[in-house]
Amino acid sequence: MQASLRRCTQSIARRASIRDYLSAGATNEAVQINAWIKSIRRQKHVSFVNLNDGSNSDGIQAVIPNTLLAESDDSTNAGLQTGASVTFTGRLTEKQGGRKVTSAQAPKSNVELQVEQIKLIGECDGATYPIQKKDHTAPFLRRNAHLRGRTSTIATMLRVRDTMTQACYSYFREQGYTNVAMPLITSSDCEGAGEVFSVMHGPQGKEKPFWPGTPSYLTVSGQLHLEALTIGGGLGKTWHLGPCFRAERSDTNRHLNEFWMCEAELAWTETLEDVMSVVEGLVKSIASRILETNGESMKQVLPQGLDICESVTSTSAAWKRLTYDQAIEELEVAAKSDADLFQHQPSHLDGLRSEHERYLADKYGPTFVTDYPATQKPFYMRENEASNVSNERTVACFDLLVPRVGELVGGSLREERLDKLVQSMKEHGMALENYEWYLDLRRYGSAPHGGFGLGWERLVSWLCGIENVRECIPFPRGAEASRF
Amino acid sequence: MQASLRRCTQSIARRASIRDYLSAGATNEAVQINAWIKSIRRQKHVSFVNLNDGSNSDGIQAVIPNTLLAESDDSTNAGLQTGASVTFTGRLTEKQGGRKVTSAQAPKSNVELQVEQIKLIGECDGATYPIQKKDHTAPFLRRNAHLRGRTSTIATMLRVRDTMTQACYSYFREQGYTNVAMPLITSSDCEGAGEVFSVMHGPQGKEKPFWPGTPSYLTVSGQLHLEALTIGGGLGKTWHLGPCFRAERSDTNRHLNEFWMCEAELAWTETLEDVMSVVEGLVKSIASRILETNGESMKQVLPQGLDICESVTSTSAAWKRLTYDQAIEELEVAAKSDADLFQHQPSHLDGLRSEHERYLADKYGPTFVTDYPATQKPFYMRENEASNVSNERTVACFDLLVPRVGELVGGSLREERLDKLVQSMKEHGMALENYEWYLDLRRYGSAPHGGFGLGWERLVSWLCGIENVRECIPFPRGAEASRF
Repeated sequence: MQASLRRCTQSIARRASIRDYLSAGATNEAVQINAWIKSIRRQKHVSFVNLNDGSNSDGIQAVIPNTLLAESDDSTNAGLQTGASVTFTGRLTEKQGGRKVTSAQAPKSNVELQVEQIKLIGECDGATYPIQKKDHTAPFLRRNAHLRGRTSTIATMLRVRDTMTQACYSYFREQGYTNVAMPLITSSDCEGAGEVFSVMHGPQGKEKPFWPGTPSYLTVSGQLHLEALTIGGGLGKTWHLGPCFRAERSDTNRHLNEFWMCEAELAWTETLEDVMSVVEGLVKSIASRILETNGESMKQVLPQGLDICESVTSTSAAWKRLTYDQAIEELEVAAKSDADLFQHQPSHLDGLRSEHERYLADKYGPTFVTDYPATQKPFYMRENEASNVSNERTVACFDLLVPRVGELVGGSLREERLDKLVQSMKEHGMALENYEWYLDLRRYGSAPHGGFGLGWERLVSWLCGIENVRECIPFPRGAEASRF
Repeated sequence: MQASLRRCTQSIARRASIRDYLSAGATNEAVQINAWIKSIRRQKHVSFVNLNDGSNSDGIQAVIPNTLLAESDDSTNAGLQTGASVTFTGRLTEKQGGRKVTSAQAPKSNVELQVEQIKLIGECDGATYPIQKKDHTAPFLRRNAHLRGRTSTIATMLRVRDTMTQACYSYFREQGYTNVAMPLITSSDCEGAGEVFSVMHGPQGKEKPFWPGTPSYLTVSGQLHLEALTIGGGLGKTWHLGPCFRAERSDTNRHLNEFWMCEAELAWTETLEDVMSVVEGLVKSIASRILETNGESMKQVLPQGLDICESVTSTSAAWKRLTYDQAIEELEVAAKSDADLFQHQPSHLDGLRSEHERYLADKYGPTFVTDYPATQKPFYMRENEASNVSNERTVACFDLLVPRVGELVGGSLREERLDKLVQSMKEHGMALENYEWYLDLRRYGSAPHGGFGLGWERLVSWLCGIENVRECIPFPRGAEASRF
């Protein structure tokens, strides 16, 4: 096989990409294209090859006269298969009359490559190649995550995710936020839920702490450190997009053990509305950038995602806001009129279940539910002045619920009053001595502030219309062990 | 203390930032500024307060008539100290004649705030506040990393790092690369050096693997996975900027246990020059963006960094390229003419020591050293056709050496030929069965490709002129245990 892995010309990397060629149009000049074969259809006089080099999602159609194939050696001829890499030289022309109707999968550009010379670079044995043309199951493709980018769905997701990341960087820059790096190895367990990974060192079976006496966890959230830079570090507005970890065994469509979060903190805010409007602005600007950049390629591959992005950007009206009390009331009314609507009857005490969240988001579209009872939420959330109708203490917080996915974002004002924070930490049974630095932020120039964390794969899942978050990250870490 | 943590008006977050006000100029309109006190100087008739809200590096000067202070209550008056947070209302005017000469540290803008009303928001007890005006040692500030952003050096570094990140995203987007997320928990040890952290789970002292039977390490490099997306996934050009981990005990200025890497892979390249030109373009465009965005604020705080950025962007000439053989020869000549030049005499067999790397970078500025003996480099580097003058096998690789820092980037063409790769892995004593997926990339449409990894904190260190990489990341993980 390696015999056919031939060397190309020295200038290979200086060549233009398919995207460059397509934007130049049908120049009829000699060009060289290095790419992978997406598909090949051999017809009577010519063969149609869909080529993709990664520079755009659509690729280009190449037309090989069968006379040229007849001149090629046997191994080249046999090697022209899906998945192989090739160097084709030829001329770019307008697609010719009869060729316009090829297949639904054919590149849509009106330019095609008239091939004059063929070189097989890397073979791809059809007998063992895992990514065949037929539909694979998601778990099968996950086990072949190193190759699944060659499927249209994953390739498009990867491009959309890139667009989203770029849009996120633009949005926060324009809003005056400083991007900061959060530590992943940490000695604090932000959510206090205990489901953390430990970082150890040493031979298998004899792992020891690397820093004896100091607990080393993988971070579950960058929030506390982000607060430190925002308030303690005086940056005022900060954000990051990066990995977080939860050592949970949740085998669902919405959970990963290693996932990405987009988190932001802003100082000098006293209303939840300020934080919610940042979230809403961010998500809308991401959806709008996706439409601009990936809209065309999503039409065929991710049509549901396209619809969602269009609906998110089609109205400038603010998303629905409901207090927790209002949400429970709505759910109780709905449950009364249809006894089979929910598996779990909504109740103020039990909190919102996934099915309740989905009901609200299906009814209203993206919905902020605010002001939850303090007992349902982490220690750092700011206590409201007034309690709720049930006479419970509530906190100034929100969850953003979106259709199909459920909880996408969690945010709150942070408790900036030292005495209230200490009281809350004690109530949550936390060891204050581990959080002295966090308390310092309330000792030395404290300021009212708030922030949020957005689950990145959930956002990819929602805006792409992809069912499972494991298809929303290149190499998922979930319930199944991974060989990557 | 908390009694003075007063509530501001509801519209607080909708206020403009200091940056916004300064760009609008001296409007003489009533404004409200929420900020931290950087310093306060009480004079006969007025007090000068340098305010900073994080929206720019310079802040704004506020002028409080002492008559106003006389009207304030005692706790407010006493609370106006370095580090406290305040809400000042007043009018923006041109700086007044006699006030232009204040101090070297005063904000340079010609606009100042004539304060009419004062509110103390968060006190900062000068008796215990760790970040006083006087110079602190770097280790002391590291132990107070949650507050050290209030020092000018760290604040400026954080802003420069943000600029660098933004510049990096722009550069790769313009060059047609797809940004991808690399897994941090992985079962492969890319460099084969064994200095990896293990990811475990469970109560302290009884930690167990989370995925039994599958090794779980923290990644030492995203390269292998990046290759998978570039070649196996057909994206063609990919990159990422994210954390990597090494469980080494190197207590130096250049090492961290958790550090960031910018890595990129490009398909269809057969010459090292293609890869080096991406690196050179990237670093030059980052330096140029720093000058644009942070040049002014670096003048006072990081003047050495400013010089470096200027020298990097001042010439369009390509950086020096030397083969390993040429480098050794140069060093041997230099050592002959000055016996005390090096502690370790340069020799072909021993490789380049840090002192040798520094000598070359001091002499030539940024220098690419290429084509090292295969035995000195990892398994994945592409073997050159010709061996070197010592008749050793060499690989198509480079290290980029820069003044003061030494090795900043490592890159190579990757071995894309299956048989050569298998041979190299065997020679490196690797367990092939763990790398079947990596070998698949050479089985199914392999293509010539190359890439590099750039140490992000080393780049921050170099371009900021900051001695130690621990001052180049918000929360460093190094030899000392960290409480954050």
